[in-house]
Amino acid sequence: MLKFKLLKQSNGKKDFEKSQARIGTITTDHGIIDTPIFMPVGTLGCVKAMSREDLNLCKAQIILGNTYHLYLRPGCEVIEHMAGLHEFIRWNKPLLTDSGGFQFFSLAKLAKFTDEGVSFQSHIDGSRHFFSPEKAVEIQMILGSDIMMSLDWCMGYPASEKQAMDALNKTSMWAKRGFDFWKEKGGVNNLFGIVQGGMLKHLRSLSAEQLTRIDFPGFAIGGLSVGEPKDLMYEMADHTLPLLPVNKPRYIMGVGTPEDLVELVGMGCDMFDCVMPSRNARNGQLFTTFGTVNISNAQYRFDKAPIDTDCDCYTCRNYSRSYLRHLYKSRELLAYRLNTIHNLYYYLDLMGKMRDAIKKGRFLEFKKNFYSKRK
Amino acid sequence: MLKFKLLKQSNGKKDFEKSQARIGTITTDHGIIDTPIFMPVGTLGCVKAMSREDLNLCKAQIILGNTYHLYLRPGCEVIEHMAGLHEFIRWNKPLLTDSGGFQFFSLAKLAKFTDEGVSFQSHIDGSRHFFSPEKAVEIQMILGSDIMMSLDWCMGYPASEKQAMDALNKTSMWAKRGFDFWKEKGGVNNLFGIVQGGMLKHLRSLSAEQLTRIDFPGFAIGGLSVGEPKDLMYEMADHTLPLLPVNKPRYIMGVGTPEDLVELVGMGCDMFDCVMPSRNARNGQLFTTFGTVNISNAQYRFDKAPIDTDCDCYTCRNYSRSYLRHLYKSRELLAYRLNTIHNLYYYLDLMGKMRDAIKKGRFLEFKKNFYSKRK
Repeated sequence: MLKFKLLKQSNGKKDFEKSQARIGTITTDHGIIDTPIFMPVGTLGCVKAMSREDLNLCKAQIILGNTYHLYLRPGCEVIEHMAGLHEFIRWNKPLLTDSGGFQFFSLAKLAKFTDEGVSFQSHIDGSRHFFSPEKAVEIQMILGSDIMMSLDWCMGYPASEKQAMDALNKTSMWAKRGFDFWKEKGGVNNLFGIVQGGMLKHLRSLSAEQLTRIDFPGFAIGGLSVGEPKDLMYEMADHTLPLLPVNKPRYIMGVGTPEDLVELVGMGCDMFDCVMPSRNARNGQLFTTFGTVNISNAQYRFDKAPIDTDCDCYTCRNYSRSYLRHLYKSRELLAYRLNTIHNLYYYLDLMGKMRDAIKKGRFLEFKKNFYSKRK
Repeated sequence: MLKFKLLKQSNGKKDFEKSQARIGTITTDHGIIDTPIFMPVGTLGCVKAMSREDLNLCKAQIILGNTYHLYLRPGCEVIEHMAGLHEFIRWNKPLLTDSGGFQFFSLAKLAKFTDEGVSFQSHIDGSRHFFSPEKAVEIQMILGSDIMMSLDWCMGYPASEKQAMDALNKTSMWAKRGFDFWKEKGGVNNLFGIVQGGMLKHLRSLSAEQLTRIDFPGFAIGGLSVGEPKDLMYEMADHTLPLLPVNKPRYIMGVGTPEDLVELVGMGCDMFDCVMPSRNARNGQLFTTFGTVNISNAQYRFDKAPIDTDCDCYTCRNYSRSYLRHLYKSRELLAYRLNTIHNLYYYLDLMGKMRDAIKKGRFLEFKKNFYSKRK
């Protein structure tokens, strides 16, 4: 069972007067997570191109799995037989799984949403399946996730007020059903609720109000970063985060760039996940203290320097831009791994630096310094 | 400069009466290699899917680079600027590079062979290039290979006697020119000669006779495993190996299966390279003590066992067939790496076991045991 300990929270004084940044710890059965934290995405039970040891080198404290994907492949029966996702993938730190809600919206074929749940066709073989809010929890219990997510109803951008209202009502109803099922089954591990409400503040307020009536161990904000302008995303986050309980973890799903993390930590968010660092790594886009490096660029052909002179990751300690460019241009599999190690280390190190700055009451100073170095 | 020390060689007694198996050490500027040895292939300056640490885990003592590939990409000017291949790829153990001869035969477009050398078009961008035997050595000197190979003239199977004779004469002429160039340039590192002669014993004899007149530090047998029946390959190897000096390393290029290694070690071969363990790994074919495992097979879906219960590799110590099958079926990049680690470890461990058996005078016993376990 999760315990969230808030170690430091905005108090309106000094450094904190312009920031809601906070630090804390989440204790799970598989270990303690320092917040704010970034969670690498391991869709199919593997953070792409990374081994467990690589993730440890990157200082990963918790990783994500995707319920929809794992349910279809290898299938719950396999993971159940292998004694759960931790044992199957041999990861002994905390795991969070999403509910499938986002994939029904983004990936599954012919998804049909009713009050009861979602019927859909596999994007792999077209086979038909049905998820209810109870089933989404049941599957995640089989996976053995330390943090499970309620089934939610996702929308794209833009959406009408009616669509947003429908989706949030369904999400709230499903959240309650999932929560009741989870409690009935013993309330093992943790289940988070997800706030929806599109890009309308009053709907975000309504969703937060409905959700926080349920005693979830933590809350997420879903439906952001779905195509809306950046300012609107920040506006929604800034509006919604304060509506969530101070004494529980707050998680913004599927976000974002390094700049997003800095902004949203400043608004009081504790948890993040995003495919960006790993996906962009595989596309040769590397995050650095000084901005983004596109490693395929000809300017790096003879470059003996590491990707980021300020970085202590395995890749930067060992390899030149010249060799990394060569590997990437040659489509060597090692390129994807070395790039991913760098990007994930960059993200997780950034979170560590933010935690440190918050601890020392220097978050705004950190933020200023962060932006000043970027091109 | 290479030193080859023969530690044990067939002496006609006991175990050795049916075997020419031998053990030795090759000393290079980048370390000592125990023979017989298998050399993983790192075509573009990277053994596919593997890092340096992975290769060390697999007990790799020496790896290969391909001159033709590295010359085209990233280009000699890059590797020269980066202070040689060792420094560029950050591998501090011995490196062997081939001469390009095989690639002109197998990969380059519109290769034109003349007495002077080979003109060819890049398989990447169609650009025109020319390799002379001297240039092949010069490029390998820039790469800084511990063991360089003479430019040779390769042929397919079948080939006429005239074709085979032409190719071997050209190869001998080029070998002498390359050797003289190498000596003239100071004779740094080591240059091996390559015996050709197709599938005709008298031509193999002629080639070996011509080549061994040149004081190369070691000799290779090329032009095997090019499509001929297995028995013919063994026959040619068995005929040619005894024609090479006892006190110098003998290398059969581009061979082979685990069974091939066992047979050819028994004939007195010291060095091997082949893409088979790494390429097959990426195709889901895993070598084990008990035969080959195709990891995508449905029978492994619920299988908690490692790939090979007799194997101590990183992959077998950590992961189940079930998870490896899932990763492979899902095309996760980690699958290629874990599979490659296993296959290379299997090959290198097999060589280690053979060295140990030869040392103890039990090679034939080892061989019997090796075959008895295979399906």
